[in-house]
Amino acid sequence: MLDSPMKPVSIGLLGLGTVGCGTVNVLVRNANEITRRAGRAIEIGMAATRDPARDRGCDTSGFELVQDPLEVVESPQVEVVVELIGGEQNAKDLMLRAINNRKHVVTANKALIAVHGNEIFEAAQMKKVMVAFEAAVGGGISIIKTIREGLAGNRIEQIAGIINGTANFVLTGMRDQDRDFAAVLADAQRLGYAEADPSFDIKGIDAAHKLTILAAIAFGIPLQYDKVYTEGIGQLTRDDIKHAGELGYQIKHLGIARRNRDGIEMRVHPTLIPQRRLIANVDGVMNAILVCGDAVGPTIHYGAGAGADPTASAVVADIVDVVRALTTDPENRVPHLAFQPGTLASVDIVAPDEFETAYFLSLTAVDRPGVLADVTRILGDLKISIEAILQKEPPGNDDTVPVIILTQRTRERYMNQAVSKIEALAAITQRVKRIRVEHFND
Amino acid sequence: MLDSPMKPVSIGLLGLGTVGCGTVNVLVRNANEITRRAGRAIEIGMAATRDPARDRGCDTSGFELVQDPLEVVESPQVEVVVELIGGEQNAKDLMLRAINNRKHVVTANKALIAVHGNEIFEAAQMKKVMVAFEAAVGGGISIIKTIREGLAGNRIEQIAGIINGTANFVLTGMRDQDRDFAAVLADAQRLGYAEADPSFDIKGIDAAHKLTILAAIAFGIPLQYDKVYTEGIGQLTRDDIKHAGELGYQIKHLGIARRNRDGIEMRVHPTLIPQRRLIANVDGVMNAILVCGDAVGPTIHYGAGAGADPTASAVVADIVDVVRALTTDPENRVPHLAFQPGTLASVDIVAPDEFETAYFLSLTAVDRPGVLADVTRILGDLKISIEAILQKEPPGNDDTVPVIILTQRTRERYMNQAVSKIEALAAITQRVKRIRVEHFND
Repeated sequence: MLDSPMKPVSIGLLGLGTVGCGTVNVLVRNANEITRRAGRAIEIGMAATRDPARDRGCDTSGFELVQDPLEVVESPQVEVVVELIGGEQNAKDLMLRAINNRKHVVTANKALIAVHGNEIFEAAQMKKVMVAFEAAVGGGISIIKTIREGLAGNRIEQIAGIINGTANFVLTGMRDQDRDFAAVLADAQRLGYAEADPSFDIKGIDAAHKLTILAAIAFGIPLQYDKVYTEGIGQLTRDDIKHAGELGYQIKHLGIARRNRDGIEMRVHPTLIPQRRLIANVDGVMNAILVCGDAVGPTIHYGAGAGADPTASAVVADIVDVVRALTTDPENRVPHLAFQPGTLASVDIVAPDEFETAYFLSLTAVDRPGVLADVTRILGDLKISIEAILQKEPPGNDDTVPVIILTQRTRERYMNQAVSKIEALAAITQRVKRIRVEHFND
Repeated sequence: MLDSPMKPVSIGLLGLGTVGCGTVNVLVRNANEITRRAGRAIEIGMAATRDPARDRGCDTSGFELVQDPLEVVESPQVEVVVELIGGEQNAKDLMLRAINNRKHVVTANKALIAVHGNEIFEAAQMKKVMVAFEAAVGGGISIIKTIREGLAGNRIEQIAGIINGTANFVLTGMRDQDRDFAAVLADAQRLGYAEADPSFDIKGIDAAHKLTILAAIAFGIPLQYDKVYTEGIGQLTRDDIKHAGELGYQIKHLGIARRNRDGIEMRVHPTLIPQRRLIANVDGVMNAILVCGDAVGPTIHYGAGAGADPTASAVVADIVDVVRALTTDPENRVPHLAFQPGTLASVDIVAPDEFETAYFLSLTAVDRPGVLADVTRILGDLKISIEAILQKEPPGNDDTVPVIILTQRTRERYMNQAVSKIEALAAITQRVKRIRVEHFND
């Protein structure tokens, strides 16, 4: 570990709802990796919640629970306040008070930043504290960092994003199940993807908050939520979605910000997108943001836009950012290899024999009975399960046929043995070609 | 602009090839936006190139051209050295010399970082300078920053990337044109997507360099290029690609780094991926990297992996990172809204009337001759071109039929006029529904 461990940074949480508990869980679960990255341990000092007695799915035994959020923002021991209570006025008051007390602030509150951000940032500037808000847009996708830093060389031309997972879930459901808006929305509410009062998501208000933030950081303009043109998805029917599909389009609820010759367009509305576009294939609660810069061209940033852990991922990244800035010299802010030198792990690199994948095997076999039985027996003896077999017509120039076999996952050394044995069969006339198969899970 | 303009940062370029010239062009073209973001102007002080007289597609009149790269790394005026000459030994010597002279270094050289990075970073640590290498992986995609900072709260589980555009271009061409490897590779060479000696790309060496870097920053392990298992794409046939397609898979050349129970797998090889996965649909020279973290879940980062401007985008982002660290207090490193306070622009926000989009119109019309002629005349009079018309069968419960019209781009105010006139037609029995259409360009 670190040669000279510094005192941990103490953070104070406002709110222990879904995202608050996710943040506690991620900080505790990944404490070791986070400390190795940040150069300093991060410790939850206290958390404010209306009902401290309620069981909430995270371990609160390691820190003080209080009911009054003011206790957190006034606590001399708290260095970073993490605001996760949502809403506008109360959150704003608490945040300004924290800033006034020279505490750094991390927030996931898009409404607050979109509507009051100009005022909040000015206060932070004066008090020389950081206000970080990566979790406000795109959940776990680090789109704020990407635009503010990763694309800093570009003149940004356009942003278009699926930035509300609830709306995308409803539209995907209407298409896949050929059902009406109201029915799918009811499902979403049952599954916890939509609030009891879903109007923020369904009417596009949440997306407009997020678009306000994206447009400001992309174009270098103030936050101007009141100028976003906003349309929801409540008017869409299953027929609209079907007709769009027949024409080769998907309907997605997009936030779009773009330069045109008159200025900057900011708009949130249902949008037809050609089916072949990657962003048209972002389904369910996932988010994706297309950013086009004059140098980089089109880029897409895809991931979970909501949920306890993905949002916590962004909150913790912001906390690490703050800690890195507080802790190290500017030139060592981010370690070259992400983790502090001296904390790199000596983990075994796996030998190819121990790789685990599925396989595509292409065999050339003499076209006679029994060959397939021999091959499948060899695979079976090595406990390699077969997913599919494709026996092709003979190409015609000799008496051999191509046989394609798709297997399930196995260790590479078993496959090596299988291939040797298959190649030793008299009916197999060429080397077996194998290509690994990965299914992933995006 | 800034209240107290600071002295510009002077950078020195090593190499004025494709990426070097791209970097000059981006720095010059976007000087205003970059200065507003970085808080300080960035100036090219000098550049080293073997043949200063050659015309190279960028304006070199603003800075000194020298032939000996040592002049750049020894120049007292240069604060940041940008290494874009490629290769290993010479680049390494120059970089270590620059570090020794306490200059910060930005590089796009993946071979150098993958093979000699451990040594280079140690030297940089001792001399307290930054070595930035965003452009080394994924071209303009800011994947290094995303993993090192944006996902800093996660235990990373897996990375899988299409990280060599040349190989992806060849595989896409083999599939789309049903042609052999050698023929498509020859095309790629003609088009400038592959080198005269393409072995670095085709044999997977370039991808292995990049994977080495990604694995190190994801898992907190040293750079270990010699432990990457590497297979190229030269053995793949059009039949392999066809058979994979029949089974519902695409073949992509992937770099994969993943934890398994024995340690970490690092491997580069052709891989079958189910067609429905987003990453299976990344075609041509584009790159995409799937990163799975325990908190964030799956994320995908997509963009141009090579080329002058996209690579320059990453190089300039690194330069801005260095300048921000050198220039501002840690807590002001990145301005809240990306651009320095006081440099926010007052740009007009476009009124909805002036939005420009294509439209999907859904009409309900009495099923009689002449209606379509009336509608198309109204659109034509307003210079709104029609892309497609879909006239549906009557649903059967009355004598109306749904008519779907897809238009080309127009200003919203013309569409407003058109819709008013269409709704005034006697044969149109309901409000016209309109949904905007965007084609994008990913």
